[in-house]
Amino acid sequence: MADFTFYTNPMSRGRIARWALHEAGADYEQQIVEYGPPEDRPEAFNQANPMGKVPALVHHHGEHDHVVSEAAAICHYLAEMHPGAALLPEQHEKADYFRYLFFAAGPLEQAITAKNMGWDDGANPQQQRTTGFGSYDRTVDALETMLSGRNFVCGDRFTMADVYVGSQTIWGVEFDTLPKRDVFVAYAERLTQRAKYREAKKIDEDWAAQRAAQG
Amino acid sequence: MADFTFYTNPMSRGRIARWALHEAGADYEQQIVEYGPPEDRPEAFNQANPMGKVPALVHHHGEHDHVVSEAAAICHYLAEMHPGAALLPEQHEKADYFRYLFFAAGPLEQAITAKNMGWDDGANPQQQRTTGFGSYDRTVDALETMLSGRNFVCGDRFTMADVYVGSQTIWGVEFDTLPKRDVFVAYAERLTQRAKYREAKKIDEDWAAQRAAQG
Repeated sequence: MADFTFYTNPMSRGRIARWALHEAGADYEQQIVEYGPPEDRPEAFNQANPMGKVPALVHHHGEHDHVVSEAAAICHYLAEMHPGAALLPEQHEKADYFRYLFFAAGPLEQAITAKNMGWDDGANPQQQRTTGFGSYDRTVDALETMLSGRNFVCGDRFTMADVYVGSQTIWGVEFDTLPKRDVFVAYAERLTQRAKYREAKKIDEDWAAQRAAQG
Repeated sequence: MADFTFYTNPMSRGRIARWALHEAGADYEQQIVEYGPPEDRPEAFNQANPMGKVPALVHHHGEHDHVVSEAAAICHYLAEMHPGAALLPEQHEKADYFRYLFFAAGPLEQAITAKNMGWDDGANPQQQRTTGFGSYDRTVDALETMLSGRNFVCGDRFTMADVYVGSQTIWGVEFDTLPKRDVFVAYAERLTQRAKYREAKKIDEDWAAQRAAQG
């Protein structure tokens, strides 16, 4: 049995987790979870994640199975379990690493969702004040400021935080959920050149193409 | 100079960060940030957090200042910087610790925000499928399942993840952003008995009362 069982779908945030699995060099087997009612899905997956969302990761560790859901948590957990891959932050990198990871998983994800769903109204004072993202425009401007003048989240060195923050940025530039500002485009280009990114992406694309051909 | 400068407001998510500061035993000084336009706020705060949101934490470390924003990131960073407080997860606790932390900072925060803003529509298939939280009801049910049968996020032992997940739960039960289910009420009661929780809460309440008295 592989160390990790990876529940995913090629057209989901599971792509983020697969990139993380490849950067970490994790020993995993995949289980594809189709969209649909719980009774049509693997029972082990339903047990693992009560949210019914992919990706979910099960770590078979000795006599225990540890479940991790949430794409950002999966990224960081894989970095923790593979210290030899040097994807964890060093002491002086921890502030940026955790700050950007939670910024992308919280306000940035929320801002992009609100925009996509037609909820965002930057002129609404209640939204400005009570929500963590304030407004889509404020969040995007903050992301630009945060990524300016550095190559990666922690400065000059790639860490696991770049898999998550970078996935949001790559996806955003490609599918127009973020504006094509120079800082975002340049960061996305640095990341998409990585061999592990391309390796992981190809698996999901091949799988999606194969399924589309089957109709 | 204290090790940490803590930018906060007593009526904000800064309460989460203050509880974390007290659990960690951090040496900090506070700077109150009033709601209002950036020009009325401390310039160092505007520089530190382009989102213009409290809480924000500046760690004065040797010759460098490290900035951390996002309440969940501040909690975890403080645990990292104070290993003697034993708030970090042990190896076998890491899956739950990071999963629950990102679940609360992502889908749970998003679900509560969507509900409060009147955006949540659990019958909308686009929302169900594309958003990380799916729907408010799904997220609340998942939180109940995740907290059932355990005293704390990592089982029997309090860790820093409880400060963040617990703050969401305590606040939710108190201000009806979560339903008053037995699991939530019991978890909130376990946490609000902690001396450090009460110590931190009193500071913010006294400060808010003092300001209200001044008009």
